[in-house]
Amino acid sequence: MPELPSEVLLVEVGPRDGLQNEKQFVPTAEKVRLINELSRAGFARIEATSFVSPKAVPQLADAGEVMAAIDRVPGVQYAALIPNERGLARALEAKVDLANLVVVASESFNQRNVKMSVRESMDQLRQVVRAAEPAAMPVTVVIGTAYHCPFEGPTPPERVLGLVAECVDMGLEEVTLADTIGAANPYEVAALGEAVRERFPTVRLGLHLHDTRGMGVVNALAGLQSGYTRLESSIGGLGGCPFAPKATGNACTEELVFMLQGYGLAREIDLDALLAIGANLDTVVGHALQSGLLAAGRPVPVSA
Amino acid sequence: MPELPSEVLLVEVGPRDGLQNEKQFVPTAEKVRLINELSRAGFARIEATSFVSPKAVPQLADAGEVMAAIDRVPGVQYAALIPNERGLARALEAKVDLANLVVVASESFNQRNVKMSVRESMDQLRQVVRAAEPAAMPVTVVIGTAYHCPFEGPTPPERVLGLVAECVDMGLEEVTLADTIGAANPYEVAALGEAVRERFPTVRLGLHLHDTRGMGVVNALAGLQSGYTRLESSIGGLGGCPFAPKATGNACTEELVFMLQGYGLAREIDLDALLAIGANLDTVVGHALQSGLLAAGRPVPVSA
Repeated sequence: MPELPSEVLLVEVGPRDGLQNEKQFVPTAEKVRLINELSRAGFARIEATSFVSPKAVPQLADAGEVMAAIDRVPGVQYAALIPNERGLARALEAKVDLANLVVVASESFNQRNVKMSVRESMDQLRQVVRAAEPAAMPVTVVIGTAYHCPFEGPTPPERVLGLVAECVDMGLEEVTLADTIGAANPYEVAALGEAVRERFPTVRLGLHLHDTRGMGVVNALAGLQSGYTRLESSIGGLGGCPFAPKATGNACTEELVFMLQGYGLAREIDLDALLAIGANLDTVVGHALQSGLLAAGRPVPVSA
Repeated sequence: MPELPSEVLLVEVGPRDGLQNEKQFVPTAEKVRLINELSRAGFARIEATSFVSPKAVPQLADAGEVMAAIDRVPGVQYAALIPNERGLARALEAKVDLANLVVVASESFNQRNVKMSVRESMDQLRQVVRAAEPAAMPVTVVIGTAYHCPFEGPTPPERVLGLVAECVDMGLEEVTLADTIGAANPYEVAALGEAVRERFPTVRLGLHLHDTRGMGVVNALAGLQSGYTRLESSIGGLGGCPFAPKATGNACTEELVFMLQGYGLAREIDLDALLAIGANLDTVVGHALQSGLLAAGRPVPVSA
């Protein structure tokens, strides 16, 4: 059987990447409750919110309030997405544990996303990394459309490797590659993972998963077999991407946990707790979720 | 990257296992059209129908008519599920190319399925295999609930290995293990595959996949990495199992093809043709299908 890493970090991004795409505002108290429940389900890291402009993402305009209201469970890193130095200042004030910065590999997508060239985004990223240093705020970078762009098609691996090289040069130790529109197949995920591992063997490599075309769980397995050690997903498959046509959801965290626990991994996560949290999520967001495991439940023998 | 077999046989079971679970009768002409379209999409084997009792499965009561009406595309094996000698006689008359026999590893499930003990089913299977010999009808066996039973929980691997041993003893060259209720995780699929391969290295091993808990595609990959070389799935994820509580569908063939073509496999299948067939399926069965790829389509760049 192909080898998997001895440890996998599951990053729950439902409260940020998941909720970000919900049109109907989710009340702050509901967000806080969700994060608190997830904290107690065993995650070592939760992407709790985003300090982007409230005008750009009204759903997460309450980022500061959310961070102030949540229970800080010991051992849990509460991360937030940070777009720029202003966002960093707000995040520092809110005592965020970890800053997630984003750059998109595709010019067309990055322009639509933040109205900047990839070069401008990388320069800004370098500024934020520098500004975070004196505050001792840990920083990770997510590289969006690392495999496919909805406008440009397949992303040349060399472009992604170039961005990873710059991140390494900035002193970053963790980089996550994002299948932003859920278009990657496991071969592409594995090939890029192996290329990164070969050129940057010390980088901790993450994989941000979407399930748009049914590849969420298989990409996770192929990724873990080829150099990635961190997976990003949403409970109940919450999420998508407003700029990515037809991107209908992040990979379901509970399905990844179900898969990983088969291998004796992710044992720290309480799957039953996850399913219980997920069972309430359709009420929180006001529509049904697409999670096979959530719908069917664990395979528990019924009385014959 | 873990190795995959150089060739994978995709067995499309939508017309049989898929339609079998549809309550509303699908007109014979629609079945014939579906099989004809699938034949032209590149499959080397299609499970076209089942010669079970029309009382037990009214949906497939037209098995003989279907077999008589379809176009026989050269290079395509038209298989049918055969429960007993009477079914075999009907299948021979209908010029079926390959007989799929089924035995279920779990006593509780087999009793519910065919009102027989596993022993009785195996004895009957042996009779059918013997009866098929003079007619030179190729026979394969599917072992149901090979990983999990909805009533008994996880199936002891030794029980499955015992049944495989009997099949080998009968002279069968191909055995398929079925995740009948979509409860297996990829570790379980891989572990059992490796155990079979180790004890019966010459058996051609198939994997019948369900996606009930989101594991359909990942189980396929883990299976191909560990000794299986044939995959059974349904276009559009048609299907389920009437005796398996909450089993909501076979794995989606188009998602398997999408995944495999990333590895340069299953090139003989026309994925665009599959998606076109799938796009019409909700009309055929009268309800929406659950296929991420069918909903989102291939990742084709949109004009920016």
